[in-house]
Amino acid sequence: MSIENLSRCSVDALDKILGVPFPVLDDGFIRVIDYMGSDASIVQAARVSYGQGTKKINEDRGLIRYLMRHHHTTPFEMCEIKLHIRVPMDCWRQWIRHRTASVNEYSTRYSIAIDAAQKTDPVDWRKQAAGNRQGSEEAVDCEVGLELTRQESDFQSRSRELYDGRLAAGVAREQARKDLPLSTYTEAYWKINLHNLLHFLALRMEAHAQFEIRSYANIIGNEIVRLWCPLTWEGFLEYRLNAMTFSSTESNIIAMIAGGRIDEARKLAIASGLLSEENPQKKNRERDELNEKILRLNLPPLSADPQS
Amino acid sequence: MSIENLSRCSVDALDKILGVPFPVLDDGFIRVIDYMGSDASIVQAARVSYGQGTKKINEDRGLIRYLMRHHHTTPFEMCEIKLHIRVPMDCWRQWIRHRTASVNEYSTRYSIAIDAAQKTDPVDWRKQAAGNRQGSEEAVDCEVGLELTRQESDFQSRSRELYDGRLAAGVAREQARKDLPLSTYTEAYWKINLHNLLHFLALRMEAHAQFEIRSYANIIGNEIVRLWCPLTWEGFLEYRLNAMTFSSTESNIIAMIAGGRIDEARKLAIASGLLSEENPQKKNRERDELNEKILRLNLPPLSADPQS
Amino acid sequence: MSIENLSRCSVDALDKILGVPFPVLDDGFIRVIDYMGSDASIVQAARVSYGQGTKKINEDRGLIRYLMRHHHTTPFEMCEIKLHIRVPMDCWRQWIRHRTASVNEYSTRYSIAIDAAQKTDPVDWRKQAAGNRQGSEEAVDCEVGLELTRQESDFQSRSRELYDGRLAAGVAREQARKDLPLSTYTEAYWKINLHNLLHFLALRMEAHAQFEIRSYANIIGNEIVRLWCPLTWEGFLEYRLNAMTFSSTESNIIAMIAGGRIDEARKLAIASGLLSEENPQKKNRERDELNEKILRLNLPPLSADPQS
Amino acid sequence: MSIENLSRCSVDALDKILGVPFPVLDDGFIRVIDYMGSDASIVQAARVSYGQGTKKINEDRGLIRYLMRHHHTTPFEMCEIKLHIRVPMDCWRQWIRHRTASVNEYSTRYSIAIDAAQKTDPVDWRKQAAGNRQGSEEAVDCEVGLELTRQESDFQSRSRELYDGRLAAGVAREQARKDLPLSTYTEAYWKINLHNLLHFLALRMEAHAQFEIRSYANIIGNEIVRLWCPLTWEGFLEYRLNAMTFSSTESNIIAMIAGGRIDEARKLAIASGLLSEENPQKKNRERDELNEKILRLNLPPLSADPQS
Repeated sequence: MSIENLSRCSVDALDKILGVPFPVLDDGFIRVIDYMGSDASIVQAARVSYGQGTKKINEDRGLIRYLMRHHHTTPFEMCEIKLHIRVPMDCWRQWIRHRTASVNEYSTRYSIAIDAAQKTDPVDWRKQAAGNRQGSEEAVDCEVGLELTRQESDFQSRSRELYDGRLAAGVAREQARKDLPLSTYTEAYWKINLHNLLHFLALRMEAHAQFEIRSYANIIGNEIVRLWCPLTWEGFLEYRLNAMTFSSTESNIIAMIAGGRIDEARKLAIASGLLSEENPQKKNRERDELNEKILRLNLPPLSADPQS
Repeated sequence: MSIENLSRCSVDALDKILGVPFPVLDDGFIRVIDYMGSDASIVQAARVSYGQGTKKINEDRGLIRYLMRHHHTTPFEMCEIKLHIRVPMDCWRQWIRHRTASVNEYSTRYSIAIDAAQKTDPVDWRKQAAGNRQGSEEAVDCEVGLELTRQESDFQSRSRELYDGRLAAGVAREQARKDLPLSTYTEAYWKINLHNLLHFLALRMEAHAQFEIRSYANIIGNEIVRLWCPLTWEGFLEYRLNAMTFSSTESNIIAMIAGGRIDEARKLAIASGLLSEENPQKKNRERDELNEKILRLNLPPLSADPQS
Repeated sequence: MSIENLSRCSVDALDKILGVPFPVLDDGFIRVIDYMGSDASIVQAARVSYGQGTKKINEDRGLIRYLMRHHHTTPFEMCEIKLHIRVPMDCWRQWIRHRTASVNEYSTRYSIAIDAAQKTDPVDWRKQAAGNRQGSEEAVDCEVGLELTRQESDFQSRSRELYDGRLAAGVAREQARKDLPLSTYTEAYWKINLHNLLHFLALRMEAHAQFEIRSYANIIGNEIVRLWCPLTWEGFLEYRLNAMTFSSTESNIIAMIAGGRIDEARKLAIASGLLSEENPQKKNRERDELNEKILRLNLPPLSADPQS
Repeated sequence: MSIENLSRCSVDALDKILGVPFPVLDDGFIRVIDYMGSDASIVQAARVSYGQGTKKINEDRGLIRYLMRHHHTTPFEMCEIKLHIRVPMDCWRQWIRHRTASVNEYSTRYSIAIDAAQKTDPVDWRKQAAGNRQGSEEAVDCEVGLELTRQESDFQSRSRELYDGRLAAGVAREQARKDLPLSTYTEAYWKINLHNLLHFLALRMEAHAQFEIRSYANIIGNEIVRLWCPLTWEGFLEYRLNAMTFSSTESNIIAMIAGGRIDEARKLAIASGLLSEENPQKKNRERDELNEKILRLNLPPLSADPQS
């Protein structure tokens, strides 16, 4: 046991951006306020677990990748970050569902609500996705977009008048706020450990996450975590964000296809409900997902047509 | 070790109200959907801890009160309840900050938003509290209330038109919802263990909690937990909700007052910043709180005037 | 909103084994004491999220598999189970690291320690694994095993004498216990929701988990969860326990191999550190894991020899 | 929004002891490895909640005490500390039950167990408490203590021989450890936020906590948190550790006593089960606790004898 005084672990690249806001959406931002730990802290924590045995694992990068690959998640909890964010309440409703963070949000009970609501450019109105009940796709027509933006602007002005009018009439802030639109900006300090943050990013950087929260998640991942813990970030991209998973049945089907047993693969797909024998054209979302993955592996996808 | 088959623990009084909605606010409700455990489960869990040693503690009520009094909280985690609630999003924003519950909320990304917003009766508009930045007090004037309610109604209609118009224009639900007012109702399944629920109730049944969430909390406490775990509820009222706490300094001041050493009590209050020697009339919120408690104990409060 | 009274959700197959101990190790057990929810509760919770939109997703099995596949984990939190377990303290030290459960453990501070320690049969002493610093493999020689078991038995008797002697000398239970061996049995009520339980099972049913805790996990999974939530269990086996994951680089290497670009695959493996150009025989654990997966897919593994 | 670069918040007094071990028990220690935040971070977080409204609350000490007094706990979560501790496994079993920390413990599966067990001096053997089933009191006789220490020493040597013998026989570390005594030292990194740490300290600095864990808690509180967040520490002592709480009934009894209505107080005590009318000498632990508090307030306690 050394009795020497330690210095706190710090990360120069992150220190350089401390406090500097990254703009998000029309009026939001993310700023790093404080942090604790680095890639080195993860390694240090893993090594207390491994004790004397770690002499052989002497390469930090390899150890971090090993931890990531084998879901040894506790060392990643040793890093902590605190962000100051400005975000529309609608987006915040999704964000706050991640229960493992510490939060202090601007109180519209205590103070007058922030006088800003998220505005949508005419070209940014997105159509309901055809194939995904909870998604969106390309923009609506330009003219429609112009009209929607005009209406939005009128409505947001009207909503603020209503709010200000209530305050002027002496109504308590806690009640006056009740009809503020979800587009109203709020601010918060949000503090979370790296393990939980990576879980947040895995879900919110994903292609199906809503555009708004994805915009925040991309900044946090690509602009902040990448600087803070570069080895962890690299491992996260490799073993999580860009990894592929095959279910037990999918693994078996792919093994059959790779082994040239196409017919057997079709039979398993039919038995598993991925393919309909009577109506091979029948859509099946899980089969579509599987075929995308099969194609990515340069193998022939399950086709509706047994001859192909 | 008995190998006999057990039956599940159940509570008749709660079974009788399972699924039945308790109305809250103008269009909200709370329903119990399922539960696990009872007062008996708390006792059972406490006794595994106490092992053979529990022969003497053979009275359930006494044991539950002992656990409550001494903050032995883990046995209360053995009970779990699942509620179905309908609540304005504004109130839900406070509710969801309790991170220890499991939640499934109605998705306005997946489905069209519930077509209901919380409406305020003309007599229910509350004034900003004078003495408390985050509270409200009596109603605004009746005429003002009428006008506020009329404006609210117009605004809520307008907001729904805007939302419906966006959907009609093909905008994705996830984006169309962005300007819904916070008064829009949402629904959720909310599942929580009894320990965490009591913590929620201690904070949200408290007099300073906002009226809306207090209305929900009162139903949960007085109409649901009281039936479900009556001994625990009684202990909670006794040792938590209606208990008094004195800080270290407050305890010393009260001891001095009770011992007739009024002057000494004043000196300690001055030294502790509760009382200003130069300006004894100077308001001090902590002293006001202390004096309320002293009066409740039938002792003479700290007065501004040393002679009194 | 129906105002009809509901009945609690129950599962006949689980009710039949309620309270009945499943033996584990030489003197341990697991009993189900209570539970809440079922596959139907998961579906119900998912559907509140999906609201009106769920008319099309009308098949429970498909919905549960969809949730499992897409990591929509919150509906699985709606189910809760409470187990009574008897387990050696050494195994319990691993178990208790899962922080998301509620626990009441037998108190050796309050009561005399359980008079039972885990015994090892002569054939059950396992050798240190050669290739894995934290694993074990086949049994030690029979004669050695006999001697180890004899020593164990003597030692455990001696440890109990020491403990009893301290108690007889009037030493406090909280101190007398300090030298009890880790093999001493303890008991606990352990309550956890299904989502967190599946996470526990994914880690502890895994081949690298220690034999002792794996024995408990296998009972919980195969004998309890399988009866309780059969659709969820099937989905868990399909999409978690028996699924395969490929990192980003692994996916690319496999695509190259499946596309016949073996040389390119080798180059990528070298660039990624999976293969050493200078010393292709050099062991690399990640490459070994990859090759196992490639073989499972009926594709040719990365070999040390470029010609093969 | 300022775009200036921030510096990380640091605390000189804590920086000076970073890494330096505080000895605990015969061979344990606590070292601070890293931390995040300070009293200033708590104030900053509280002020984002209060927004513009905080101009008046411009004194940090007052604000922190206000937060502590009113159980506004989230700002205290903004501070985080990481300790390196060395502790007997018996004590660690209590410690780890605090589920809100992040932990990496020395692995005796991966590495050979630490060759140190907690030893007890002849004068440190404590008797079982007479009045409290889970406590201890004064030391056993000196001669008995000498004998107990001698036995302990023999036993610990024997246990290490057994362990070393198993390793020498090739037994896997994960199995060889099964009979290590609970007194064996382990090490861990333990990271926790200040709110949860204060909760830990409130329970473990308390007089009824076991001596061993109390020794660690006292160091953490008095030597570490006091330096790290001095205003919070002061508030914690004032409003938590040294505060007094009266139940609803206790408050009423004290009010009656202070108002001179002794007889009424006795009647309420009888009605509440604190006092037995038939047998006023009958022991009642809750009454004893109440009387201690009443005496601390310089009021006459509830006596068994109505005349007194």
